[in-house]
Amino acid sequence: MTDPIEYYREYRSILDNSQVRELFSEISFDQLIGEWRGLSEEEAADIFLHLSPEVKLDLITELEPDDQEKVIRRLSAKGKRTLFQSMEPDDLVDIVQSVSQEVRRTVWESLDDESKKETLFLLRFDEDDAAGLMTPRYLAIRSDITIGHALAFIRENSAKVELLSDIFVLDELQRLEGVVTVKDILSSGDNLRVSEIMNGKVISVLDSTDQEEVARTLETHDLVSIPVVDQENILLGVITFDDVMDVIREEQTEDVYKMGGMSGEAEAYMTSTIWRLVKKRVPWLIILLLVGTITTNVLQHYESLILGAAFLFIFMPVITQTGGNSGSQSSTLMIRGLATGEIEFRHIWHILMRELFVGLLMGVITGTVILARSFFLPPGIFLYEAFVVGISLALVVFIANLIGTLAPLLIHRLGFDPTVMSAPLMATVIDVAGLTIYFETAKLLLGL
Amino acid sequence: MTDPIEYYREYRSILDNSQVRELFSEISFDQLIGEWRGLSEEEAADIFLHLSPEVKLDLITELEPDDQEKVIRRLSAKGKRTLFQSMEPDDLVDIVQSVSQEVRRTVWESLDDESKKETLFLLRFDEDDAAGLMTPRYLAIRSDITIGHALAFIRENSAKVELLSDIFVLDELQRLEGVVTVKDILSSGDNLRVSEIMNGKVISVLDSTDQEEVARTLETHDLVSIPVVDQENILLGVITFDDVMDVIREEQTEDVYKMGGMSGEAEAYMTSTIWRLVKKRVPWLIILLLVGTITTNVLQHYESLILGAAFLFIFMPVITQTGGNSGSQSSTLMIRGLATGEIEFRHIWHILMRELFVGLLMGVITGTVILARSFFLPPGIFLYEAFVVGISLALVVFIANLIGTLAPLLIHRLGFDPTVMSAPLMATVIDVAGLTIYFETAKLLLGL
Repeated sequence: MTDPIEYYREYRSILDNSQVRELFSEISFDQLIGEWRGLSEEEAADIFLHLSPEVKLDLITELEPDDQEKVIRRLSAKGKRTLFQSMEPDDLVDIVQSVSQEVRRTVWESLDDESKKETLFLLRFDEDDAAGLMTPRYLAIRSDITIGHALAFIRENSAKVELLSDIFVLDELQRLEGVVTVKDILSSGDNLRVSEIMNGKVISVLDSTDQEEVARTLETHDLVSIPVVDQENILLGVITFDDVMDVIREEQTEDVYKMGGMSGEAEAYMTSTIWRLVKKRVPWLIILLLVGTITTNVLQHYESLILGAAFLFIFMPVITQTGGNSGSQSSTLMIRGLATGEIEFRHIWHILMRELFVGLLMGVITGTVILARSFFLPPGIFLYEAFVVGISLALVVFIANLIGTLAPLLIHRLGFDPTVMSAPLMATVIDVAGLTIYFETAKLLLGL
Repeated sequence: MTDPIEYYREYRSILDNSQVRELFSEISFDQLIGEWRGLSEEEAADIFLHLSPEVKLDLITELEPDDQEKVIRRLSAKGKRTLFQSMEPDDLVDIVQSVSQEVRRTVWESLDDESKKETLFLLRFDEDDAAGLMTPRYLAIRSDITIGHALAFIRENSAKVELLSDIFVLDELQRLEGVVTVKDILSSGDNLRVSEIMNGKVISVLDSTDQEEVARTLETHDLVSIPVVDQENILLGVITFDDVMDVIREEQTEDVYKMGGMSGEAEAYMTSTIWRLVKKRVPWLIILLLVGTITTNVLQHYESLILGAAFLFIFMPVITQTGGNSGSQSSTLMIRGLATGEIEFRHIWHILMRELFVGLLMGVITGTVILARSFFLPPGIFLYEAFVVGISLALVVFIANLIGTLAPLLIHRLGFDPTVMSAPLMATVIDVAGLTIYFETAKLLLGL
């Protein structure tokens, strides 16, 4: 099949509006996002007009701020009204916060009073906390009304909410007292009171709760939505599972970036500029480079050793690399365990005991492998040299495994994020330790 | 606060049952899971008895098969009946599939006819596909009934389903015709027909769809649940968002493990045995070690070069390390982009052009940094030597960046998972390329 965007460019002049609509109803959302930045402002504006209302909403919330601005600037007053009034309040706030003053004003003018009120309310909160995910549109009832009454209320008002599942029970001061699901209401008799069927142990989060903690709470309890309250337990809004899924994905990307040695901010690759990519990568590269040059000082000590035993030189990279791999395996296990909450600092002795054995076994196995490999295959060194290499590697793997185990636990204990300090920095630390162990073991065994 | 498990061990003899219940109502679920394997069979059985029904259900589904067996074996006939009959059919099937023949029979005998039928139905499907996530409990109606009639049906049957949100519309052959949400039904007049308000464009997945694709489909469309159909569009079951969240988390752990150079199977660290940990790690360690020994053959060529220019030796680790870091940054960006669907193979030329510039910039910057560092700080080499090191590093970073960019794209194109081949293997490939570039550049610049 041809690329809809190429086809559009080639034949726009002979396509009527319904044909353009048809064309872009087929395109995948990921492709649309991926190619958006390559479009001229005219093309972007024209294509946007012919997307379905749902895709318009999804797209505008996903675009980078400057692309959002370009689209919004070209919309008619009516187009803006339709777009922004059907938008979820939390998404609307994100746009209001990211666009320029000028565009912000035109967005504002297109809102009705209700949306303006909701937006102003949400703007009071920090966008990185639980409050940044919540919508102020929810259904709330009193505990003393009957199920029949509640049901009538829900039928009248359900169109107002995004997701109809949890109905919150508030007291006269708007404090969160309980929750009932629509399922509970539908399966109860009309004459019961809400108080008789409501769950009074509501799981809620504070407006200042970290987004990742919100995600974990919702997941642990398999909730469709989670209420956000303030210090006085007054209900501020509701976070739905779909926003939590976005948080999980974002967190996932950030962790992967950090493990790859980059600043962790998740940003679309295809729409990022070259300069932003360099800025994301080069600071870490320089830090690691400067830390890594410590190895030059270590190696200076062993220059003369190399002149006497050249085989040590040729095995250097494979020794440090294998040490690094063993260390990054154990640090990965620790980091993941810490992230999921399975591992805690107080387990440190138990973990250490296990990893002593794991490291010993892995050291003996890899040491034996390299001994055999280097004796039987080219470069084919002498047997006593192969023993030196094998024993050093076993020690390096053992020590690297311990460093990889302990470092994340200690970093986490000190209150830092172990993922940031992970794989690449670990590799440098292990390089320094590994080279020292390697050469010292060799010196000892060779009697130099 | 004291550890509930320690407290339990210390004082079990003087605690009555309600006090034990009280004690374990406070414990976090993660801690319970984390410490479970450390409990004796008696302790595990006793504590399990005193957990709340919800925690019992969550715990038994999360435990490793042999721990599940231990608990189940000690339950009374009544305890089994209560536990398994309140369990979701998909979780029940997982247990039936993982326990031993003997325990399986006792589980089976505790089920009522309805549960047996559901379980037998689910056992027909592969547990790794969409079908492995679905529950056969859903509400389905015909399109020609009225809303009033539909509502009465829902009120009567809603207790049967886990999550009340989507009601499926089936034709007389059980084929999926449409979907209505409870919200749509509640906000419509009683005399309308279901066909007038239903959404006829249902998003569904096949029973053989991959679990990760199910996750992506549900996420893209912000669905609470997604129906599973067979080739004939007959409705088999429903997957709810909470099961999809588990898939996303599992996928996340597996990706992180693969990046850390381990077999990707997600398994709890604390409950794993030492031998299982070694088995998970050592195969990759040996493969990477053997591939890595190629560097010994490369370095053999340059032994004599080192004797003439010893400064090349001491900068070797920092050069390969920095090359490796730059390569793992770009491969991480590619792997992540491929995983989210943002990057596709057909973007290869566009990406290549960008990365040529990114690599060039990063090469020049890091080259300049190391030039200054090695000239001004110890070991304080000569300026011409610093130039050799700087220029080589710039080239290594540039080439490593390209390898890190292209390798995942090509691996993905060939139909393999680029995450598996990621960071550690990349490091080895880049080591070989980096060392060759380094020494060849040095030879050229030094006129050797």
